[in-house]
Amino acid sequence: MVNTVFYEPDTLKEFAIDVLIKAGVKLDNAEKVADTLICADLRGVSSHGIIRLPTYVQRIEAGVLNPNAETVLEKKGKSVALLNANNGFGQVAGYKAMHTAMEFAGVYGTGMVGVKDSNHFGIASYYSMMALEKDMIGIVLTHSSPAIAPYGTTRPLLGTNPLSVAVPACKEKPIVLDMSMSMVARGKIRYAAMTNSKIPLNWALDEEGNPTDNPQKALKGSLVPIGGVKGSGLALVVDILCGVLTGNSLTGEVKNITDMSGPSKTGHIFCAINISDFVDIIEFKNNIDFIINKIKSLPSAENNPVYLPGEIEYNLADKRMKEGIPIDESVIETLNSLANRYRISNL
Amino acid sequence: MVNTVFYEPDTLKEFAIDVLIKAGVKLDNAEKVADTLICADLRGVSSHGIIRLPTYVQRIEAGVLNPNAETVLEKKGKSVALLNANNGFGQVAGYKAMHTAMEFAGVYGTGMVGVKDSNHFGIASYYSMMALEKDMIGIVLTHSSPAIAPYGTTRPLLGTNPLSVAVPACKEKPIVLDMSMSMVARGKIRYAAMTNSKIPLNWALDEEGNPTDNPQKALKGSLVPIGGVKGSGLALVVDILCGVLTGNSLTGEVKNITDMSGPSKTGHIFCAINISDFVDIIEFKNNIDFIINKIKSLPSAENNPVYLPGEIEYNLADKRMKEGIPIDESVIETLNSLANRYRISNL
Repeated sequence: MVNTVFYEPDTLKEFAIDVLIKAGVKLDNAEKVADTLICADLRGVSSHGIIRLPTYVQRIEAGVLNPNAETVLEKKGKSVALLNANNGFGQVAGYKAMHTAMEFAGVYGTGMVGVKDSNHFGIASYYSMMALEKDMIGIVLTHSSPAIAPYGTTRPLLGTNPLSVAVPACKEKPIVLDMSMSMVARGKIRYAAMTNSKIPLNWALDEEGNPTDNPQKALKGSLVPIGGVKGSGLALVVDILCGVLTGNSLTGEVKNITDMSGPSKTGHIFCAINISDFVDIIEFKNNIDFIINKIKSLPSAENNPVYLPGEIEYNLADKRMKEGIPIDESVIETLNSLANRYRISNL
Repeated sequence: MVNTVFYEPDTLKEFAIDVLIKAGVKLDNAEKVADTLICADLRGVSSHGIIRLPTYVQRIEAGVLNPNAETVLEKKGKSVALLNANNGFGQVAGYKAMHTAMEFAGVYGTGMVGVKDSNHFGIASYYSMMALEKDMIGIVLTHSSPAIAPYGTTRPLLGTNPLSVAVPACKEKPIVLDMSMSMVARGKIRYAAMTNSKIPLNWALDEEGNPTDNPQKALKGSLVPIGGVKGSGLALVVDILCGVLTGNSLTGEVKNITDMSGPSKTGHIFCAINISDFVDIIEFKNNIDFIINKIKSLPSAENNPVYLPGEIEYNLADKRMKEGIPIDESVIETLNSLANRYRISNL
């Protein structure tokens, strides 16, 4: 049994900021990184939460991530742009890129900003949800290190390549899809590896292409894409948009977050759609409410409650804002050894 | 065993145009519809080929599709627009909408055109591939009649909601993804029903939610989405974009092409991305060639050749341009009975 301790979100966030500042990150950037980590923990995506902090710090210390890099906007089109992250935090680039995409959408109807030479940016839905405040639809893609074998091959080359789409509602909670193109996100397998848990057999293949319940073997093998050829095709398209359209890197070149041999060379795409350039925004949001309620009133499988994409995460975030975020003792130990090394207070 | 006869593409196309004109379609529109049907047959997507002609004609005769409807462009944003198809052919609206999206992309970097009050438009890749001629990336979505049960429910409400993405290459064939969010397109099940073939057990569920190999039972039940909750989420997002953002219809309201009780109320989304507003187009296309060759050189599963999305379809189209398109005798009979009724030459 794994023991957990509950922490207030702000406690974890301040801890993360303190650690990042000690690692040489300027305050503004540290706040953005910490915010995405705690957002992930609040929403129950612990694989992308504060558990990642030691790896981020390690990348800085190894000199393969520039924590205070200047981002540079390269503008050629009107409603589109490229942002060069200059090997800085994905969170810093992502925040700026999504804001820029939303600005474009406000003027032109849509905005699309590609980011190159970036790093891991946390959870994709952090950025897609930014669009909700402006009554826009947010769409965010990122590619990642080789994990999925292109259909018909046995060698992982494509990332899990997550996609997030956020759609505003009126009285109901927004619809927020956040998914990778594999049966499960690699983060979940990495988390299982860190917590020594087994994984279901339909998640991954070992190096020889056989199903495995061992997360260590799975991390050396490949992940099963959704719908076989379809998920592999979707992952390829995300890779092309995030890697080739941005001039960032070619398929298979993104380094894993734990690979300290050089910059991760990660690319992302951020899009915003200004709903009111299509239809009346009040009508749109009422229609989304209607659809949410229509789906929730359908006969459910095995009498379980029916949830829309993102609903469980919103509910969990509400609960954890009140009751705190549970952190495994093994993770706390790792974080506190980081704190000790930087001579800051333990969690 | 099913007997087939091979026809020259132009023969089939002229036949389709003749039939459509007799059904009251003006030449220009008839040509567009026929072109998408033959394009599907050339690419091996026979479920969306000339086999659909009798159903199109039936919709016109039933008065639930206006074959010569005027399409009206409603413009609010700069790089975006809505096209009201006024219950005309999806092909006519789709052709115009994709062209408009490409025009916007040429000016602003991206273009996005939503279509409302439309009908079945054939294969999505017909339109996404239009972008290739202008060195753009084409992205096309459409929703469709209820086929997939939202995750956690037992009632089909979401369409199979296809997505197509076309990416230009240099010397290699373009990458063209064209996929539905179900394990298979409903058209394949409909085709199996028409040709009295059994279907694999992992394609669909019957009305009670049990796997079935009977295409008739499958058409009354629901289709299995790719990756379970993920495919269901993707289908929902496509539905929202095509139905709600366009002001077209709410989830679950699209009528099946065979339902003659009223207009199908179908919506689509057409997007174009002007690559050269991001990176040098020659470099981009060379990079796509590089990726294609990289994937094709990976160790293959069971020593089978490795194909990129769309490659099999391009190869088949080349072959069928030379050798003709095979049409099942049962389909020929149906088409010829239509020809007899309209007093035009048999196939």
